[in-house]
Amino acid sequence: MKIKLKACATIANLVCGFDILGLALNAPYDEMELELINEPKINITHLDNFNLPTKAEDNVAGVALQALLNAYENKNIGFNVTINKLIKPGSGLGSSAASAAGAVLGANQLLGNPFTKQALVGFAMYGEALASGAMHADNIAPCIYGGVTLIRSTSPLDIVQLNAPPMYVTIVHPQIEIKTSEARAILPKEISLKNAVTQWANVAGLVTGFLQSDYELISRSLEDVIVEPYRSKLIPWFDEVKLQCKAAGALGGGISGSGPAIFMLCKDEITAKNIAQVMKDIYTKIGIDFNTYVTTIKSDEIFFSK
Amino acid sequence: MKIKLKACATIANLVCGFDILGLALNAPYDEMELELINEPKINITHLDNFNLPTKAEDNVAGVALQALLNAYENKNIGFNVTINKLIKPGSGLGSSAASAAGAVLGANQLLGNPFTKQALVGFAMYGEALASGAMHADNIAPCIYGGVTLIRSTSPLDIVQLNAPPMYVTIVHPQIEIKTSEARAILPKEISLKNAVTQWANVAGLVTGFLQSDYELISRSLEDVIVEPYRSKLIPWFDEVKLQCKAAGALGGGISGSGPAIFMLCKDEITAKNIAQVMKDIYTKIGIDFNTYVTTIKSDEIFFSK
Repeated sequence: MKIKLKACATIANLVCGFDILGLALNAPYDEMELELINEPKINITHLDNFNLPTKAEDNVAGVALQALLNAYENKNIGFNVTINKLIKPGSGLGSSAASAAGAVLGANQLLGNPFTKQALVGFAMYGEALASGAMHADNIAPCIYGGVTLIRSTSPLDIVQLNAPPMYVTIVHPQIEIKTSEARAILPKEISLKNAVTQWANVAGLVTGFLQSDYELISRSLEDVIVEPYRSKLIPWFDEVKLQCKAAGALGGGISGSGPAIFMLCKDEITAKNIAQVMKDIYTKIGIDFNTYVTTIKSDEIFFSK
Repeated sequence: MKIKLKACATIANLVCGFDILGLALNAPYDEMELELINEPKINITHLDNFNLPTKAEDNVAGVALQALLNAYENKNIGFNVTINKLIKPGSGLGSSAASAAGAVLGANQLLGNPFTKQALVGFAMYGEALASGAMHADNIAPCIYGGVTLIRSTSPLDIVQLNAPPMYVTIVHPQIEIKTSEARAILPKEISLKNAVTQWANVAGLVTGFLQSDYELISRSLEDVIVEPYRSKLIPWFDEVKLQCKAAGALGGGISGSGPAIFMLCKDEITAKNIAQVMKDIYTKIGIDFNTYVTTIKSDEIFFSK
């Protein structure tokens, strides 16, 4: 029994929601195929050229699948997994999360859906732990649930799906390397209570904006006084990109995950495309290679094909 | 022209939402009467025995009304204000905010509503500045808007009304004195990023719980890892009250504003009354005088009478 699926890219943090908010994208995505086999083994094949490890215990999809199998009653099954990774590792678009989440989504489907989405997030988080050393869920959760997700707690796991109004997402991925561990190390361990209050006011505003389809409130709340001041320094011309994109009509945006990708939200496709052009112009001018994407928020459907 | 109104008590912070969330109560409330007069003067009379200043520039209602008059075109008007304060000053239930907010609500009504609610909050904040030295709005805003309010920003002022499902509120006010300034001074200036993330995850959960009428999510999100650990030490038997109230079926709760009042939210009236009994039993046993209230969230109607 085989299944094909698209494992979607995701945007973690969503500006003010550091470590707690995430959003699923319709593009880019990894192509994955899973086959259920009758032996307790996980075989990983990568069709891409990113030189990712294929030993199951060293591969994020392998580790996530092993966590799922450990919780499954039948111990005599396994999976053949083929991954064509189209989300570049290190982009800040949840590349490792896509492999881990896609693997457990596919496995659950092949097994007749014995696990809840929240349980799947728990399994896939082992992949994140392998990739970055932290059991974080802000890419995993939106990849599995679709839409916008709130991770209220990782221990115990408490994930809340948030309705959001239709939005376009424009992304630029300047081809520079930022390690997640480096992007974490740059953050202060202590922050001022004053800034924290500003941040949770914006988190509350952003969540309310999503749930009440209030674009203006979303726009006003897309401010980050905690993380962006540090991490934006790792991304050349970040401030200029943000400034020009907002001038071009973006609701707002910021660093995707730990970067270097930058995302902008907006209401309509024409603005989204204009914003992509703004991004292209900036990185072309300064001579840094880049990709751009103009996409939308992925709904909670799981795109399976036989 | 005269008007009578009830200026409601309010609960600021709502556990995790320090400085940004507030909730309006149907009880207790101050009784206020305002009369529009044809001279540029503000006369304050207090019917209660709290020995509050009655000189307009020293009285929170007077200061708030002066701010309103400064923004009003006709400079030849003023108000006679009579206040029967039933919300005890220093209770943590927004006593000063009620006077300031009630005054500007009444004045606006007498003048034919020239000002928006947000503008009224701005005027009333001058009363808060007089009372506590800080231009905070987390009691003022719910008193003026009713319901649950989010203060996304105080500068510029950005207030968002949040729908919330029906809830009962049980309050105990142990008759001890905590100065707002002392309750502020006890807080750390710096907090860990880790705790801040926990807090804004709960803020996001609480707001989502309100907007989606999800009582379980409200309950899980009513946790405060930042402020309560410090301020709860100022309130005798706080931990015991919280523990026993939750055991008796409260969704959760905590310190009202800067205390000493403690509030608990719950779904039904029987539980709310049981919780009041739990509170009474504890403070009777340890011999501290107290008041309790069993009430509901005040809607955004303004209770005016002629």
